[in-house]
Amino acid sequence: MKVVGVDLGGTTTTIGLVDSEKESIVNKVQIDTNVHEGYVRVIERISRVINDIKDDSAAVGVGCPGSIYEGVVRFSPNLPDWKDVPLAKMIEERTGLKTFVENDANSFVLGEKWFGDGKGKKHIVALTLGTGVGGGVITHGILLKGHLGIGAELGHVTVMPRGPICGCGNYGCLEALASATAIVRMANEGKKKYPDSLIFKSEKITAKVVMDAARMGDELVVRIRDIMVESLGIAIAGFIHIFNPEIVIIGGGIARAGDLILNPLKKEVKRRVMPSFEGTYEIVISKLLDDSGVLGAASVALERLEV
Amino acid sequence: MKVVGVDLGGTTTTIGLVDSEKESIVNKVQIDTNVHEGYVRVIERISRVINDIKDDSAAVGVGCPGSIYEGVVRFSPNLPDWKDVPLAKMIEERTGLKTFVENDANSFVLGEKWFGDGKGKKHIVALTLGTGVGGGVITHGILLKGHLGIGAELGHVTVMPRGPICGCGNYGCLEALASATAIVRMANEGKKKYPDSLIFKSEKITAKVVMDAARMGDELVVRIRDIMVESLGIAIAGFIHIFNPEIVIIGGGIARAGDLILNPLKKEVKRRVMPSFEGTYEIVISKLLDDSGVLGAASVALERLEV
Repeated sequence: MKVVGVDLGGTTTTIGLVDSEKESIVNKVQIDTNVHEGYVRVIERISRVINDIKDDSAAVGVGCPGSIYEGVVRFSPNLPDWKDVPLAKMIEERTGLKTFVENDANSFVLGEKWFGDGKGKKHIVALTLGTGVGGGVITHGILLKGHLGIGAELGHVTVMPRGPICGCGNYGCLEALASATAIVRMANEGKKKYPDSLIFKSEKITAKVVMDAARMGDELVVRIRDIMVESLGIAIAGFIHIFNPEIVIIGGGIARAGDLILNPLKKEVKRRVMPSFEGTYEIVISKLLDDSGVLGAASVALERLEV
Repeated sequence: MKVVGVDLGGTTTTIGLVDSEKESIVNKVQIDTNVHEGYVRVIERISRVINDIKDDSAAVGVGCPGSIYEGVVRFSPNLPDWKDVPLAKMIEERTGLKTFVENDANSFVLGEKWFGDGKGKKHIVALTLGTGVGGGVITHGILLKGHLGIGAELGHVTVMPRGPICGCGNYGCLEALASATAIVRMANEGKKKYPDSLIFKSEKITAKVVMDAARMGDELVVRIRDIMVESLGIAIAGFIHIFNPEIVIIGGGIARAGDLILNPLKKEVKRRVMPSFEGTYEIVISKLLDDSGVLGAASVALERLEV
């Protein structure tokens, strides 16, 4: 079956034609989202691209940051003027294709279920470590959304009750300790003690700068990594106790650090899980990489068509 | 419909005939479990009582501490010699009634769904605060068990990473900070600073002694209560972010403290949830009280018969 996946982001939007049998992206177009033009023009531009590449697609799936309810974007920190925007309906009107929308973290876990390491599994916990920390959960084969569709906010469990304040207003959330935003904050906080850290040699603290420094054994970066790993370990051990999942999958920009994060994280989680849970789970880094956005969005449609 | 509910405990076992239409326990028998006699004799004694009271019951439901998988008690800290005991099968053979078994925390949340404040709800988080802290979750109408049936261990999420060691071997679990065991430990730890605390006037630190002292504003007890409330607040806010439940229900012996716990707990959770979750949940103390065990066990059967 063919479906169109739309990975709608605050800066860039990627639209791809996905063949579910071939498990591949047949055609892919990337455009600037240009949020400042307002949601109507953004949606029109996206719909035009969908019409260009849709071929004989059965439906459109959209992964979108923010709070989504039944195809409507209620609000989104990354899409400032999007308040109660009927995204699914607007795309349907412009493309003639049935359209389904999920938030990007839910879309990520669905992508893993359909195309990634979650294939064939019914109990999956997924975390995306990027600007924020997103969460997606499949439990007993069902996408966990909760009664108003706002659940699975795994980035906002408290891991350090006396920890730093989070964007959400609470203290010590996982997101305040294991996101790109948290890394930059901790780097700046560490400048006094580690003025010679490699990360201050560059103009800007980017993911690449941090990872290069980590590989060189940079002391500040190692400390930040340790805090991240402990925080992730606390949270993931908790998710394992709660969901008894077959697999925990980590994605997002920070996941590119690969074994630099994964190996110490596995140790930390093992230290923290109850004996009866040992050996019941695996922890992996997503293998979908740059395609996770479009494949995830396509999976939003595949999941609904299948039911 | 009538079913028999068996609330199997380490010390006492209560067996009740439950009428699901009347939502009441028609007949109830309490016996000593006498674990030391070995599981065969315990199960035979329970089966005899079931046969005495079963009337025209459709099935038997059992709530049992420990790790349960498809009717088999894999192990149970409270039932020392019970290793891989085929409890459901053994009761079926002796009573001729189809028998279903769940651990006691799962049975508690099912009881709330069928007979308590969870009625008509599809998203319920339940905590039992007793010797340990048990958890039961219904999400999207399904009892959350995970891929091996050992999930929903809500008592073993970390709430204080540098906190006291827990029976499970990890540090700072909810159970290590909000169970009866934790209260007694914290009381003994506080003896040096608060030698005149009311709780040391009695021979033994019981739930009643602690609650009476709390009502008198006893300083040590108020400190213990504050630690419990903060720990529960951290955990429950996390469960709300994860499950987006309609209701959080608290049971177990400590829940008898009622508003002494509930009012500060509601405040603590409100302080900690993200703005988008405000007003989306309620937190209540179970109204089933002494009947929660038998009604929960009966619900284990009702839930399965209904599907």
